Amino acid sequence: MKLVAFSTSSAAARPGALIAADSVLDLLHPACALPALGCEHDAYDLGGAFLPAAMQLAANAAELDRLRTAGAVLARGEVTLHAPVPHPRKILCIGLNYRDHAEEQGAKLPERPLLFSKFDTCVLAPGGTIRIPKGSTQTDYEAELGVVIGRRASKVKKADAMAHVLGYCNFHDVSARDFQFADGQWQRGKSCDTFAPFGEFVATADEIADPHALGIRLRLNGKTMQDSSTNQLVFDIPALIEFLSEDITLMPGDVIATGTPPGVGFARKPPVYLRAGDVVEVEIDGLGVLRNTCG
Amino acid sequence: MKLVAFSTSSAAARPGALIAADSVLDLLHPACALPALGCEHDAYDLGGAFLPAAMQLAANAAELDRLRTAGAVLARGEVTLHAPVPHPRKILCIGLNYRDHAEEQGAKLPERPLLFSKFDTCVLAPGGTIRIPKGSTQTDYEAELGVVIGRRASKVKKADAMAHVLGYCNFHDVSARDFQFADGQWQRGKSCDTFAPFGEFVATADEIADPHALGIRLRLNGKTMQDSSTNQLVFDIPALIEFLSEDITLMPGDVIATGTPPGVGFARKPPVYLRAGDVVEVEIDGLGVLRNTCG
Repeated sequence: MKLVAFSTSSAAARPGALIAADSVLDLLHPACALPALGCEHDAYDLGGAFLPAAMQLAANAAELDRLRTAGAVLARGEVTLHAPVPHPRKILCIGLNYRDHAEEQGAKLPERPLLFSKFDTCVLAPGGTIRIPKGSTQTDYEAELGVVIGRRASKVKKADAMAHVLGYCNFHDVSARDFQFADGQWQRGKSCDTFAPFGEFVATADEIADPHALGIRLRLNGKTMQDSSTNQLVFDIPALIEFLSEDITLMPGDVIATGTPPGVGFARKPPVYLRAGDVVEVEIDGLGVLRNTCG
Repeated sequence: MKLVAFSTSSAAARPGALIAADSVLDLLHPACALPALGCEHDAYDLGGAFLPAAMQLAANAAELDRLRTAGAVLARGEVTLHAPVPHPRKILCIGLNYRDHAEEQGAKLPERPLLFSKFDTCVLAPGGTIRIPKGSTQTDYEAELGVVIGRRASKVKKADAMAHVLGYCNFHDVSARDFQFADGQWQRGKSCDTFAPFGEFVATADEIADPHALGIRLRLNGKTMQDSSTNQLVFDIPALIEFLSEDITLMPGDVIATGTPPGVGFARKPPVYLRAGDVVEVEIDGLGVLRNTCG
């Protein structure tokens, strides 16, 4: 399933599924008859009642015909897409996790995953405007593979880790380099409002044959600036989940941004930074395109 | 009002008010007849309908008598206290923010507030057990004044900042120094599960005459290890809110941990670290005592 969050002029943000012919199934429509959500994060819980039933429904062509007739399917043009997890409880980000990106910075390969984070107020919808902070002249782009957690994970071993993954999405780790490097701690430079666009959808794990062999690209105003593969990850997804979950419980809807490949702006000669009006696209194989404008 | 969150054997976690004679007013009891909460974070919103009405109710002695009769008041011994904001959307932490603590480490006074963060999975109830990570031998204590946001704040100036404060609480910034210093980025060492005990209550701002003149102490197994005053803050609360809200929107229920005074364990000679069985108490004037055991 391609999980989205959407709203319409008459309906608040809610989970949906992108289905064929560029349309969106409203998973909260009464005709879907899905189990009620206790809280919004239940929508990402593979161990709950709602999500597995929603995945079955979205995969059932006969049911989709019935739901179309019942008015539960909307044209994509009629809805506003939000980030597919509008309010993640955690956004865990991994630094220096591509072999080629570490080389680009002259940084040693890390001995263990390097964790930092973004706040939920960073979340930005596909199509939304990245706001360049007034005080920053060095706001940079980073294309990343986002991994969304689908099952609570505490002290999970590599061998079991993938069972805790709901799916994958494009993630844009916007970074104010001047804030990041001046502070030493990266939090502020990584956590300005709008600095975490992701989506348009979360492809559930069954849709992605091998998340460690996906082309990942970033285009700035149409020009390719990053072009690599997730086969360059220093710490792969099971390694990240084992490491993080050792002391930090991962929850359904948590997003892990797995690091960025080479080609970021500050490492270029001369450097390239985001400017008002710029259009940035993150595109990972099988995950569509995440497009945002800067303002 | 002294705002708490509590549960009973028959009622899920909910907001309450600590009132006289060691009892808790159940703010969701029908006899309180307060406006319904749209989401749990509405309980911290000074601009919403619920919180101002709750504060009026808890201050009205005649109403409290009526509510006692109606069964809306519970003995404190009957309830389990949670952290007063059980699921903050953000926990923003400030490093090196006491003059005397910066000196203790031989660190220069920062030119601007140094931001890092903890995850919501760090939240620990008063009385709960701080779990020392298996991989850490240098888990340390830090007493801090917690500031809870009560009104959305974006680009708020110092002069207006205090209107965005809901109130104050004891906060314990538990820190695995080995993780913190090995990584360079502080996130992992600051964000292990149970590393953010706070409470027992949030004293609303009207209860605290001057938050910048509060004695702040930490006791380890009864021995005073930190003993300072919030008058030592390098950046005071309005300065922090102005700085943070410039690019990061603060939301009701967000917690700002404002930094720790001297006396932390790693700066002692010899160093002192937390061990299973240790009892740590954070005590700030007017904010009660936050007591946790280590395990």
